[in-house]
Amino acid sequence: MIKARKEVSKLTIERMAVYYNTLMKMKEEEGVEICASTQLGENTGIASSVIRRDLACFGGFGRKGVGYDVDFLLSWIQEILGYNTEWNVLLVGIDIPVTGIVSYYSFLPPGFKITAVIDLDKNNRGYTFPAYNLAIQPLENLKTVIKKQDIAIGFINVPPKQAQKVVTMMVKAGIRGIANFSSVPVAVPEHVFLSQVNVASCLSQLSYSLRTGIADGYL
Amino acid sequence: MIKARKEVSKLTIERMAVYYNTLMKMKEEEGVEICASTQLGENTGIASSVIRRDLACFGGFGRKGVGYDVDFLLSWIQEILGYNTEWNVLLVGIDIPVTGIVSYYSFLPPGFKITAVIDLDKNNRGYTFPAYNLAIQPLENLKTVIKKQDIAIGFINVPPKQAQKVVTMMVKAGIRGIANFSSVPVAVPEHVFLSQVNVASCLSQLSYSLRTGIADGYL
Repeated sequence: MIKARKEVSKLTIERMAVYYNTLMKMKEEEGVEICASTQLGENTGIASSVIRRDLACFGGFGRKGVGYDVDFLLSWIQEILGYNTEWNVLLVGIDIPVTGIVSYYSFLPPGFKITAVIDLDKNNRGYTFPAYNLAIQPLENLKTVIKKQDIAIGFINVPPKQAQKVVTMMVKAGIRGIANFSSVPVAVPEHVFLSQVNVASCLSQLSYSLRTGIADGYL
Repeated sequence: MIKARKEVSKLTIERMAVYYNTLMKMKEEEGVEICASTQLGENTGIASSVIRRDLACFGGFGRKGVGYDVDFLLSWIQEILGYNTEWNVLLVGIDIPVTGIVSYYSFLPPGFKITAVIDLDKNNRGYTFPAYNLAIQPLENLKTVIKKQDIAIGFINVPPKQAQKVVTMMVKAGIRGIANFSSVPVAVPEHVFLSQVNVASCLSQLSYSLRTGIADGYL
């Protein structure tokens, strides 16, 4: 198991995911096999010094003047970000037959798999997504589903009023990580990992910049 | 126009959006009219000292021992984040009749309005979303749509190979801001604002934490 040499910042992890996607693109589209940090920098828009520092957090292995072996770097990042493990995901939402689940699939990192879907509206029970071999279940099934399917991660995208309630149910059922797509913060105990997927916040950076004419601050 | 006293970090803006959502929730659900930073801290999970520092960036006005007037704070954050302005948005995607547009709507901050939709697949031309009064247009219309509807912001969620091409078209047509929902970085000239809406990166924080057993780093 690859261990970080020191405390790793959230932004480093975020950039590692960007390196992964970009390297995959460079490999698949251009057949790149060896990649210098400067080249990765040009393709990501991230300074090559930052890239070298990020990778060095986990024990840098690029050879000076040679660059990184793309395949090795990809499998190494996969290992670091936990993409090698299969993570069963439960999605809890509302109006899922209308909102759909395809958009979640397009965002899933390698290793993530939505294996169960719950809709807060009982009327949507039994609605199926044949392409994904999924059927919508009611909230009452939450605990059973998590235990039976060994679900590690819960996605929630429910109205603000229901968010904390659903999270608490997930935690009690033994979930290990939660991605909160709803627009309000939720609280989890220390042993559960939480990721705020705050699209509205990202978009607010944009309106802030457009209003003020200044870029969205320093990282 | 409210001006920042000093350079404001990206994370401050991100948190301002969270304060806004949380205050709205506190107002609507609990009827809260006056709110201390400690109370906002409890509801957001953000340290009250950080909250006070964030708000002070724009000229703090909370009265010690009294707290913030919720309505005033809401309208003040609205003004700061540009929520008061109407931002016309063009969404460019692929397979939109399948992926849907509802999920974008659920993430839109106040002021953002999707007024046009383009699908890269010509076969989807003319598909309508009656609830939103929108019809899918082909890529050829991009320039005309942006100019005719005075569109300020473009959302892109297209396959990696097409991302930069679509962004370049948008920039040439005079777009002022772009939210990139695709999984690869794109480049824009300095006068255009860019926001990476990187859901996969957020989710990667989660698999990283689950794999290593350590939280997703410091902010």
